[in-house]
Amino acid sequence: MTESRLDAGVTLWLTGLPSSGKTTIATAVVRQVTARGYRTEHLDGDEVRTYLTADLGYSRADRDANVRRIGYVAHLLSRNGVVVVCSLVSPYRAARDELRRLHGGRFVEAWVSTPVEVCARRDVKGLYARQRAGEMAGLTGVDDPYEEPLAPDLVLPAHTQTEEESVAAVLTLLDRPAP
Amino acid sequence: MTESRLDAGVTLWLTGLPSSGKTTIATAVVRQVTARGYRTEHLDGDEVRTYLTADLGYSRADRDANVRRIGYVAHLLSRNGVVVVCSLVSPYRAARDELRRLHGGRFVEAWVSTPVEVCARRDVKGLYARQRAGEMAGLTGVDDPYEEPLAPDLVLPAHTQTEEESVAAVLTLLDRPAP
Repeated sequence: MTESRLDAGVTLWLTGLPSSGKTTIATAVVRQVTARGYRTEHLDGDEVRTYLTADLGYSRADRDANVRRIGYVAHLLSRNGVVVVCSLVSPYRAARDELRRLHGGRFVEAWVSTPVEVCARRDVKGLYARQRAGEMAGLTGVDDPYEEPLAPDLVLPAHTQTEEESVAAVLTLLDRPAP
Repeated sequence: MTESRLDAGVTLWLTGLPSSGKTTIATAVVRQVTARGYRTEHLDGDEVRTYLTADLGYSRADRDANVRRIGYVAHLLSRNGVVVVCSLVSPYRAARDELRRLHGGRFVEAWVSTPVEVCARRDVKGLYARQRAGEMAGLTGVDDPYEEPLAPDLVLPAHTQTEEESVAAVLTLLDRPAP
């Protein structure tokens, strides 16, 4: 079978530190894929909280439940032909690997690999500043772990790539058939 | 626009007491709709617990969260053209009405109206017996409330209808365009 990942339905899972650029890339990918006529959903960690994950905090168990829950929804959508773009810190390798198994092929893990120094300078939501000021604890990459993917399908160094380059790399991969 | 509810994507929401016949009707509807070539998902209260609602119990708040969470997933699927069949007790009217609003038209509420005496005799999961034996509390329709739909799209009296008649009534409605 030679249909592309976009034709078959797929979950694009963007993992990386806070302020690494996940949401920016996700939004641009969704715009382009939608413009090409595909059914597309963007599940963003912050946005699905109201309905899906309002009860969850930032412990390891809660972060894992968050990834599992959103990943399950992505699985249901992608197996029905939808192109699903998920942008979540999703710091733990085991939880991401579990999702890959659940998806049985329709899964692309893209690591937005912006280093923590650059993320802390960008600090889109002010989290790094609040952590430095002692107003919060458990910030991924600073005082909470981030387990880098060992075999991602794609690495997106958003600190040395333009947004256009990141998006082009994603679309090149999604235009290919699943291996 | 004259496309049918099945063509457009729709959520069929089966509400009713435990052992009223929701899952049986849901399974038969899913089988027939799938055989006709539609993308279909069955979200059953008991089955989605592993990924979506493992943390939830049977308080009013938890029951509402359960309905809200599964309903949100149904909304995402149905707006992408999937025929979603949900079979959940979903005892509270306000939670069901919230889902109807969220779905903006792609929602069919079917009340499986089997009376509690008949449900208690069937007792598929042994819940009524356990409640009588004092081994559990909070059984919907017995010592926990069930708020009957005031304006369901469809009433399915599964105690006086055959399974085939219930399924035919559902399919007749889903084959029509949304009003």
